[in-house]
Amino acid sequence: MSNSYVLVVNSGSSSLKFAVIDSQSGDAIVSGLGECFGLSEAVISWKYQGEKTEETIDYPDNHHQHAVDRIVKLIESLGLNDNIIAIGHRVVHGGEKFTSTVRINEQVITEIEQLAELAPLHNLAHVKGIRAAVKAFPSLPQFVVFDTAFHQTMPKKAYRDAIPTELYDEYAIRRYGFHGTSHYYVSREAAKMLDKDVNDTNVISVHLGNGASVCAIRDGQSVDTSMGFTPQAGLMMGTRSGDIDPGIIEFLLKKGWTQEQVFDTLYKKSGFLGLSGLTSDARGVLEAMEQGNEDAKLAFEVFTYRVAKYIASYMIPLQRVDAIIFTGGIGENSLPIRREILNYLRVFGFVEDEAGNEAARFGNSGVIARSELHNAVAMVIPTNEELVIVRESVALLD
Amino acid sequence: MSNSYVLVVNSGSSSLKFAVIDSQSGDAIVSGLGECFGLSEAVISWKYQGEKTEETIDYPDNHHQHAVDRIVKLIESLGLNDNIIAIGHRVVHGGEKFTSTVRINEQVITEIEQLAELAPLHNLAHVKGIRAAVKAFPSLPQFVVFDTAFHQTMPKKAYRDAIPTELYDEYAIRRYGFHGTSHYYVSREAAKMLDKDVNDTNVISVHLGNGASVCAIRDGQSVDTSMGFTPQAGLMMGTRSGDIDPGIIEFLLKKGWTQEQVFDTLYKKSGFLGLSGLTSDARGVLEAMEQGNEDAKLAFEVFTYRVAKYIASYMIPLQRVDAIIFTGGIGENSLPIRREILNYLRVFGFVEDEAGNEAARFGNSGVIARSELHNAVAMVIPTNEELVIVRESVALLD
Repeated sequence: MSNSYVLVVNSGSSSLKFAVIDSQSGDAIVSGLGECFGLSEAVISWKYQGEKTEETIDYPDNHHQHAVDRIVKLIESLGLNDNIIAIGHRVVHGGEKFTSTVRINEQVITEIEQLAELAPLHNLAHVKGIRAAVKAFPSLPQFVVFDTAFHQTMPKKAYRDAIPTELYDEYAIRRYGFHGTSHYYVSREAAKMLDKDVNDTNVISVHLGNGASVCAIRDGQSVDTSMGFTPQAGLMMGTRSGDIDPGIIEFLLKKGWTQEQVFDTLYKKSGFLGLSGLTSDARGVLEAMEQGNEDAKLAFEVFTYRVAKYIASYMIPLQRVDAIIFTGGIGENSLPIRREILNYLRVFGFVEDEAGNEAARFGNSGVIARSELHNAVAMVIPTNEELVIVRESVALLD
Repeated sequence: MSNSYVLVVNSGSSSLKFAVIDSQSGDAIVSGLGECFGLSEAVISWKYQGEKTEETIDYPDNHHQHAVDRIVKLIESLGLNDNIIAIGHRVVHGGEKFTSTVRINEQVITEIEQLAELAPLHNLAHVKGIRAAVKAFPSLPQFVVFDTAFHQTMPKKAYRDAIPTELYDEYAIRRYGFHGTSHYYVSREAAKMLDKDVNDTNVISVHLGNGASVCAIRDGQSVDTSMGFTPQAGLMMGTRSGDIDPGIIEFLLKKGWTQEQVFDTLYKKSGFLGLSGLTSDARGVLEAMEQGNEDAKLAFEVFTYRVAKYIASYMIPLQRVDAIIFTGGIGENSLPIRREILNYLRVFGFVEDEAGNEAARFGNSGVIARSELHNAVAMVIPTNEELVIVRESVALLD
């Protein structure tokens, strides 16, 4: 029997990530990125058998379609087309409509377009990629995996804001949460590592990357998460403020700031970048801190302190916690950040396994702390959102 | 030796609360309220020896001054004037300037005026009351107790927002916290009840009233609190949303809402009122819930869930907690709300003392739950901000 592959597509407003993934092994056969869409520098690049190729996209516009067409040719030239059994798309916002992965048809595309009001930057870009892929691969079944779907199990007390009910009824303003695919993946992996039934496993999943969110997962289901109506809420991130007193926004608007200045500052100039004044990258912040930079130290302290507080707060919906999971670029790799957070978690009996913590980096999973008090572990599990997209697509094929 | 009294003044924009308090016993000799200032219905009322008197203020304007002048006459007619040794004023915002109670002089008044930028609704109203009192009682020493002062011991990681450092440098945007006088009072009372040195006592103070905030107090000092730059942040309250995704504000402004509509909604139409659609009063919400109203039930659930999550998060800065203290109108009286929060705290080993919880209402303090796991108690302590103002004023007199 020949191998079966899934083409995974993540289409942004000016870029399109793709990968052909072996549905059994999870390995990427070829992976690449189209970027600078809408500009004259539009380009597409890919990696195949360790070798990287880059090509300009020599068309004035319609770069999503041209990128997908180039991927079609690439797949043909590599002789992969007969092995591709499905295409899986990542979509940020599924609103309250989509609670799981769905097969694409015209109605689904229309509904994703309609949800663009809730995620204007993302959903329309996703639809561009989806339409291009449907045109290019008309005979292949295609699927959509939503970042929000996993969180649709949250109870009302977690997803409703303390604002007039009309705002929920009229505008669908509520907590949706994001990073669902990642939180889903690591919670399943954790259950396996703990040799437990996922439906009886309670974990706090801590996804720390350029975007960051925490998720409380009870009996395998999301019951609370730190991102909200938008991916701006919750933890401090690379350039995002996370939770902030709404009175600060009012104050700045009264000072004469434009709305664009205010929200641009909170979304693109805050977080690690804003506090350190240096960089949005946690590694750069840690380096500067080691060299004695006080602002970088403060950024590190605010970040770790807030992550620890969120973890503690999710003891409330879980009542019993089996594991705290670190994932995402920072969560999988940053020893000082994990160490500081574990240090705070001593109040719940967690004791760092120093060797385990040092070993669980650069793609390695493992236990990094244990709590006798709560009969729980802290662990690192590298996330793999693409693998979830592959698996869900294959599952729906059958 | 004759009794010594302190006149306590809390001046708002359209009202002025006052009380003459015995500095030894803490009893109010006379207490009253001027209200509807700026309107033709301006009125002043007071209670003395169980009897209530009300008078209109028959002047077209300058109602703060006329109210204070009436208080002077009242005090004279009751023969109290020789016993009054000081006047203590409550002021909401002391910025980073005021870290404790201070004696009033012209410079202090000017500085409170300058801080009005941070608390426009409150500080200018306070100054009106202070100036009127200085004019009316020129020979009495007068003092100011700040709602923010107690929180000035917070570390940077707790008080700095994850926004560009320039916003702190230029506009002093940071977490200030409020309800400081209440958190201070109950933490001292708790130490006494626990027979511990307050400087070695760690408590989480939960002030639940029409406004609500939680404070983490380590070794007697505030190290974190849920209100922020303004009293809008943190817990859901009577009419305030508390923490909210900043993306919701951006969304509503893009929908064409005016800034005033948005912030008015978040400050005056949200919280218990917004979720229940009925009332900002927790008692009314509980009554409706008992009658089967689903929106009221949701308001109750969101409120209690969020309070419990905040309490849990403050285990992080404290590491060891000796007591969780409930205070404020709701915290002192509402059995169902305390019971639901205690129920969440079972994850930290707290077991409700049902009889204790039922007894600690309507002005009674007491232990309402115990945790063997954390060697801690939960207790109710009725707050007494006026007594703090009296004590601090007397202490500075000496």
